[in-house]
Amino acid sequence: MKQKLIFTEQPGVAIDILIEEMGTPQVVVVADTNTAQFVLPRLVNDSKSVASAKLITVKAGEPHKNLESLTGLWKSLSDMNATRSTVVVNLGGGMVSDMGGFAAATYRRGMRCINVPTTLLAAVDASVGGKTGINFNGLKNQIGSFSEPEASVISTIFFNTLPGQQILSGYAEMLKHALLKDETTLAKLLAYIPDGAGFDPETLLPLVEESVLVKADIVEQDLREANLRKALNFGHTVGHAFESFAFKSGSPIPHGYAVAWGMTVELILSHMEAGFSSETLHRFAAYIKQNYGSFEISCDDYPALIENMRSDKKNMSADEINFTLLSAPGKPEINRTASEEQIGAALDIYCDLML
Amino acid sequence: MKQKLIFTEQPGVAIDILIEEMGTPQVVVVADTNTAQFVLPRLVNDSKSVASAKLITVKAGEPHKNLESLTGLWKSLSDMNATRSTVVVNLGGGMVSDMGGFAAATYRRGMRCINVPTTLLAAVDASVGGKTGINFNGLKNQIGSFSEPEASVISTIFFNTLPGQQILSGYAEMLKHALLKDETTLAKLLAYIPDGAGFDPETLLPLVEESVLVKADIVEQDLREANLRKALNFGHTVGHAFESFAFKSGSPIPHGYAVAWGMTVELILSHMEAGFSSETLHRFAAYIKQNYGSFEISCDDYPALIENMRSDKKNMSADEINFTLLSAPGKPEINRTASEEQIGAALDIYCDLML
Repeated sequence: MKQKLIFTEQPGVAIDILIEEMGTPQVVVVADTNTAQFVLPRLVNDSKSVASAKLITVKAGEPHKNLESLTGLWKSLSDMNATRSTVVVNLGGGMVSDMGGFAAATYRRGMRCINVPTTLLAAVDASVGGKTGINFNGLKNQIGSFSEPEASVISTIFFNTLPGQQILSGYAEMLKHALLKDETTLAKLLAYIPDGAGFDPETLLPLVEESVLVKADIVEQDLREANLRKALNFGHTVGHAFESFAFKSGSPIPHGYAVAWGMTVELILSHMEAGFSSETLHRFAAYIKQNYGSFEISCDDYPALIENMRSDKKNMSADEINFTLLSAPGKPEINRTASEEQIGAALDIYCDLML
Repeated sequence: MKQKLIFTEQPGVAIDILIEEMGTPQVVVVADTNTAQFVLPRLVNDSKSVASAKLITVKAGEPHKNLESLTGLWKSLSDMNATRSTVVVNLGGGMVSDMGGFAAATYRRGMRCINVPTTLLAAVDASVGGKTGINFNGLKNQIGSFSEPEASVISTIFFNTLPGQQILSGYAEMLKHALLKDETTLAKLLAYIPDGAGFDPETLLPLVEESVLVKADIVEQDLREANLRKALNFGHTVGHAFESFAFKSGSPIPHGYAVAWGMTVELILSHMEAGFSSETLHRFAAYIKQNYGSFEISCDDYPALIENMRSDKKNMSADEINFTLLSAPGKPEINRTASEEQIGAALDIYCDLML
């Protein structure tokens, strides 16, 4: 089953059509405390299936993507006698679709769900591809499943009110998809700046659509991340290391920013080890520096950063650090490894280029 | 993916071969407090992969098939740094494979598992077909997934020490599979009595194999129980009603006995509503009465029994009671409904035949 992808500025109408196609089942909206307050009222006006739906609210924020919230979701579904034919509408960011999607995938061995992402990051990333789950035992997404939603309804109208930082955070994943597609797509995204003043839903929606389709195409070929899907981890080995490092030092950074900087380092590695063009690398790094600034590191931080990379759950053994590299835009090489020396050299170049 | 089915009297050898085929990954055995004590030592002698495996023990018994035990399983897997390539070996009855299978299906979005059923009931039912899960909020299997194991290693050597009642309980599901296959298979099972004195592993294993293949064939066509798989619910609408009734009245009955009596009632309904042969019905009922005895009911109990049938989670609406009926052995008719009057009439005939 391939999930439906609907790009629209009338999400309420799209939801009603989907629900009707699904046989007009009982609908349950899962929202977080923010989206329930600020987004749901707009949808209630535009969608009769949302207006008549039951609501389950979860506490907002990644720390609440946990077993306690999941148990609450299961309990609410059970108490309201939801059946296998009930449809869950996940209204929120990735935290809501991850956890709501997992609850739906496991309640009575699986009910259907529709994702309605309310952030750009969720629209281009979590809402598509069926990775669901919760954090557990101090580890991200430790419990979950690969369970695709019936559909994602993607609309930029929800993004109007997002802070510029959140838009840029989502845009970083779009840059990643462009790097996985081709030179032309990358050039198009590097020519656009989705900041506060320049933000324009009509321009953004087609770019979002193109970006989501890159991911959907990869996921369709390899849902369970046996091989090709690993390409979507591009930028994330270093990105996660930056994110953990920043978190531990008490100054957390947005996920997308970590990925933006992580991609820069991994493009440097790709240049060193896989022949990625120096010219494209420099254009990319300049764009990141201009729009995202730089993540400040010094060579004293390398051991801690490399330690973070080593504990990444994608590594197959403790001796090697796994990367997806690119020989060119659209040409990922999965399951590449790099030594500490190579990583150190790439971080040196990062410091030269970015700081 | 279709699960491998291995029928053998050397389960330890079979497990070692499977583990080697899977690339000699880390192995974790999930057992309950009984199988860890009484079955595991035998396997440890015969299997080097089991001998070198880590062990996770869960408390034995259906009441422990709950969120607390599942959380413990997840925590143990996480604490021992199990990865996606780790293989779980579920050693026990259906409770162990249901819960261990669900833990495996959801730990890091899915690891592989092998079921090694230690009861006849688990061998012919839970170990095959990928229904995993836990009881939740007072409801059976309320949380779970359809996740097939990599393989089931089925061996009657584990059944030697089972009480006769447990053997008969498993045999009831075999009778169900025979009813779903054909007249010949049914006749073969009705000619065999798996009681204490007559119990003979060499005769039983081929019958078990034939029985499991009936289920596997149905599951392969319809894993998610959209249609054909519902045939496997034959006997269970009334069976579950008997089981709940007995449980509430303080004298629980084994699941397989409830299904044996439930099948008798549903064959009566099948005779009344779907043309099932009276002669075969009488032979079946006589076999059940002789080997399982009878479940004592009177017409005063009908309303409570019908109420139990009404709350069955397979019913699509509160107004109808769903059954799988048979027009003949091998000819199931799913999604049939019956009125209270029809059910009452069938229970009357059950009382005439069986009491």
